[in-house]
Amino acid sequence: MASRTFIMVGNKAVTEHFSLNDLAGAAGRMDLLCRSLSTAFFLSHGMRRDVKVYLVLRGEPNPPRSLSFDGSELKYMSPDERNIGGIIRKALGRDDIRPYWTESTPGVHVSSMDLPDLLKDLSSPKGHYLVEDGEPMDSVEVGDDPVFLLGDHNGLVPEQEVLVEDWPRLSLGKRSYHTDHCITVLNHTLDKRGL
Amino acid sequence: MASRTFIMVGNKAVTEHFSLNDLAGAAGRMDLLCRSLSTAFFLSHGMRRDVKVYLVLRGEPNPPRSLSFDGSELKYMSPDERNIGGIIRKALGRDDIRPYWTESTPGVHVSSMDLPDLLKDLSSPKGHYLVEDGEPMDSVEVGDDPVFLLGDHNGLVPEQEVLVEDWPRLSLGKRSYHTDHCITVLNHTLDKRGL
Repeated sequence: MASRTFIMVGNKAVTEHFSLNDLAGAAGRMDLLCRSLSTAFFLSHGMRRDVKVYLVLRGEPNPPRSLSFDGSELKYMSPDERNIGGIIRKALGRDDIRPYWTESTPGVHVSSMDLPDLLKDLSSPKGHYLVEDGEPMDSVEVGDDPVFLLGDHNGLVPEQEVLVEDWPRLSLGKRSYHTDHCITVLNHTLDKRGL
Repeated sequence: MASRTFIMVGNKAVTEHFSLNDLAGAAGRMDLLCRSLSTAFFLSHGMRRDVKVYLVLRGEPNPPRSLSFDGSELKYMSPDERNIGGIIRKALGRDDIRPYWTESTPGVHVSSMDLPDLLKDLSSPKGHYLVEDGEPMDSVEVGDDPVFLLGDHNGLVPEQEVLVEDWPRLSLGKRSYHTDHCITVLNHTLDKRGL
């Protein structure tokens, strides 16, 4: 089965147990990451089992933290921000987070990897980097098992951009979209291509 | 300026003050409507001022309720579900809701109109109805000021479908998307067309 992988970096997203009542504020725009997970995985009546998502969280107080979500194993997730925030919070609250993956809930793993470690850990590390001034998605062949890297509302920082300087740069148009909206458009584009 | 109008029907969405801690459950899938408003209006660093959204809520205990959101006047809205839920809740909690529009917060109005009343109230009532078996969006000319009607997770009920039986039926593909994802794809498609 073909797969789709989305890697998202949240440079301000908190790295400890957080309040579900302030995802957008105190939790460092965790709302954006929750919506991104929601649209990556959810169809109207079912889940995209061929999707994998990796989050790299770099906010205070315990950066870095990486989380992985495997659609083929996910359970107990619903598409609202609060539910997904609870799953992320549970993973971040563990006291056994190490430089390798530890399962938190079904299909969800957490580690202390940063973006360089994560890119090394992925078996097909070269993907497409979403930027506003890249090649138009409609004219790009992304392959059978595409990997997409997306920044948060402020984009990647320079030391992260260096890591993917040889990745093809992909654009969804002249308007600047939220990360979750980019993922929705990417999923739809791949659906139309029959991937 | 061209405009885009999205009409969404939430047949189970509650019609009174509700808890922001259970948008997906007790509030009748209000989470879905909140995300739909979020993607209808928000760009990464700004709002789509040319968008209007109408919600028709038909859950208990006070149906029907219609809400209107005008992007050219909206203030104090952020893209997270909880913030938008708070704006909807404030409008539904008013004690002066009538069969015509009352302003609740800047750009947000509430009324006791049902879908037939709302369609009569709109100045350009004939729009496109989103369904899975409609004409592919990519081959449809939607005009300069398109109006789109979308159901909730269960679609429209038969007496609502009758109201729009002469509307063109539009499809985004074979996969069944959440309402908010449909709006993201529609906005992106119109962006690409330069509308």
